[in-house]
Amino acid sequence: MSKPATTDLNPPLRHLLGPGPSPVHPRVTRALGAPLLGHLDPAYLAIMDAVQTMLRDAFQTSNTLTFPLPGAGSSGMEAAMVNLLEPGDSVVIGVAGYFGERLVDVARRQGAEVVRVDAEWGRAIDPDAFVSTVRANPGARLAAIVQGETSVGVLQPIEPIARGVRGTDTLLVVDAVTSFGGTELPVDAWGVDVVYSCSQKCLGCPPGLSPITAGARAAARFATRTRPVASFYLDLALLGKYWGPERVYHHTAPAPLVYALHEGLHLLHEEGLAARAERHRHTAAAFYAGVEASGLTLHVSPADRLPMLTTVRIPEGVDDARVRGRLLNEHGIEIGGGLGPLRGRVWRVGLMGHGARPENVLLLLSAFERVLGTEGHRSESGAGVAAAQAVLARGAAD
Amino acid sequence: MSKPATTDLNPPLRHLLGPGPSPVHPRVTRALGAPLLGHLDPAYLAIMDAVQTMLRDAFQTSNTLTFPLPGAGSSGMEAAMVNLLEPGDSVVIGVAGYFGERLVDVARRQGAEVVRVDAEWGRAIDPDAFVSTVRANPGARLAAIVQGETSVGVLQPIEPIARGVRGTDTLLVVDAVTSFGGTELPVDAWGVDVVYSCSQKCLGCPPGLSPITAGARAAARFATRTRPVASFYLDLALLGKYWGPERVYHHTAPAPLVYALHEGLHLLHEEGLAARAERHRHTAAAFYAGVEASGLTLHVSPADRLPMLTTVRIPEGVDDARVRGRLLNEHGIEIGGGLGPLRGRVWRVGLMGHGARPENVLLLLSAFERVLGTEGHRSESGAGVAAAQAVLARGAAD
Repeated sequence: MSKPATTDLNPPLRHLLGPGPSPVHPRVTRALGAPLLGHLDPAYLAIMDAVQTMLRDAFQTSNTLTFPLPGAGSSGMEAAMVNLLEPGDSVVIGVAGYFGERLVDVARRQGAEVVRVDAEWGRAIDPDAFVSTVRANPGARLAAIVQGETSVGVLQPIEPIARGVRGTDTLLVVDAVTSFGGTELPVDAWGVDVVYSCSQKCLGCPPGLSPITAGARAAARFATRTRPVASFYLDLALLGKYWGPERVYHHTAPAPLVYALHEGLHLLHEEGLAARAERHRHTAAAFYAGVEASGLTLHVSPADRLPMLTTVRIPEGVDDARVRGRLLNEHGIEIGGGLGPLRGRVWRVGLMGHGARPENVLLLLSAFERVLGTEGHRSESGAGVAAAQAVLARGAAD
Repeated sequence: MSKPATTDLNPPLRHLLGPGPSPVHPRVTRALGAPLLGHLDPAYLAIMDAVQTMLRDAFQTSNTLTFPLPGAGSSGMEAAMVNLLEPGDSVVIGVAGYFGERLVDVARRQGAEVVRVDAEWGRAIDPDAFVSTVRANPGARLAAIVQGETSVGVLQPIEPIARGVRGTDTLLVVDAVTSFGGTELPVDAWGVDVVYSCSQKCLGCPPGLSPITAGARAAARFATRTRPVASFYLDLALLGKYWGPERVYHHTAPAPLVYALHEGLHLLHEEGLAARAERHRHTAAAFYAGVEASGLTLHVSPADRLPMLTTVRIPEGVDDARVRGRLLNEHGIEIGGGLGPLRGRVWRVGLMGHGARPENVLLLLSAFERVLGTEGHRSESGAGVAAAQAVLARGAAD
């Protein structure tokens, strides 16, 4: 065998302030190395039960089908589509960014006919427009929409949509990949049929799991399908028999990631859902103030902003890739570039999970000032940090 | 929020001597906790390159499409089927155990017509019968067979099948979930089109990744499909654009698992493919001798045995679940029960990856003697361990 390309595994330390993964809490990292168990070991099954209980609390649901899928957030999106759709089904999909487009792609791969409800990349979709489209398509099997569009930094109102869709036969699917754990999404109270997310954003775990919850209406759909679910790996009924009391073997579980999720959910419980959502909003508010005091512009208007992911417009004449490269190499900070029509137009800054803390706001604003000052965008020295500090102090005094 | 069901994550220590996961080398466990990187960080891309290079060496292939899928071994099976098949395609599948049956299920979910080549659970499939079935179905899109049937402990000869299928338009897919890294499977030399495996057996990593390799004939198939691949998450062409020089974002990578795989592949390189295969055979031979000296019977005849997974017949009058429960609770040893028609008839013992070591053979034989002695199967004191020691000593003297 040839010599390996590298002999050492020594990843550099990074401040993960991009669209995800977010920084992992040390307690979560420690959990990864806990002793490995078999996927049917009674001790492992007890850990699954604890994870499931904590996940139901986090989703604010009593749904039986609530567990982490053994895959990235995109596996959650795929599971929702592949389990609910059959060729020829009609679906309504809200598209206001990259992940809305991906929903369209994933639905079409199941042979579905997609009715789109579009909004500009950087604005929320009008809930009334979405609801009226669903009501105008009474045969639609499902309606899907993204709560937190990571590609643009928009928080989509879900509650009025859920209210408007209620009473129809159309199932409501919400993509909460970026928003889950960091903003409100009471699944049962709002009456959402399926919600999926990921481990590596507001839960502060490493990537690799996709928490999902599906209600009774969704589960009933599995029984009325005319064809089997096109995926064995993501078949929710089979997964439910592994996560449920039957404990029927389905796949060999990625135990270290489940351990990490267990610890991440514990941290969420210790903090509380409301406190964590407030922390995300407060950290974001400090960052907004700092960005604007630095003479930079936020891409999304205040009413539509997603607390955990902020899009900052790249100033005229500033080189996108150079700035991100310098942040990474000189300051160890990762932020994201724009996607699709926003490529080269915005930076994407994530302050999520364990990363949604004052120190990261100050670190990034300070690094922005140093790097942008020599890349064509000068700002008043310390103005960004000072403005952020003022917001942070106000929060602390409340 | 309600109080979490458990407050601590303290998995007990287990000797993982079942069908997988296998014991993880401490160097691999340590790699899990390395600093998290973003999935497009240049430092992470370098780690991907190293993993890819080492994987190609391990598969003995120059296939461009060679990488770990972000899912369990079953995601590899699904990827092979979902990328190559369209509704109405004909496929030939060898079925001699649980995972052959799963291949049939996964292929049918793609709308394929399955032609089965069956063998008894506990015997290899006759290569001539398999080849002649493929040749009798010239329109068959693919032929799939399991190299190491984990449910029965049979090593299926692949080389004569690959030779016999060569020259046809049928793609050969080999499931090497249990065998990869622990026995011979030179992908290019034998001319196998697609091979998939997992991280948690002979590679000695935790579960959660599925190494896969696909050759040029398989890749050409993607371009001639009339419908899109039914899975976005496992679309090999898209995954190839993330693992290849394009670096197009597809999913957020489970970095800790990729770090672990990096270290696991490193250990494989340090040992060498041939030495590791020999270690598996030698460890298995010692276990066989010990089992037979203990008055127990092996389910599979010598010519068909899979070194990394051994099926031991449960003696008459002995309670399957009680014995496994006592091994787990009194000795901290996990072994597997039988599946399907072998349920209650065999135990499944895995000596794979970091677990394929003399100490585990001796530990298990000793625990077997103690537990079985009070469960209705008495054997000569120390006979099993002595017989295994004799084989191990012979190997050391070679």
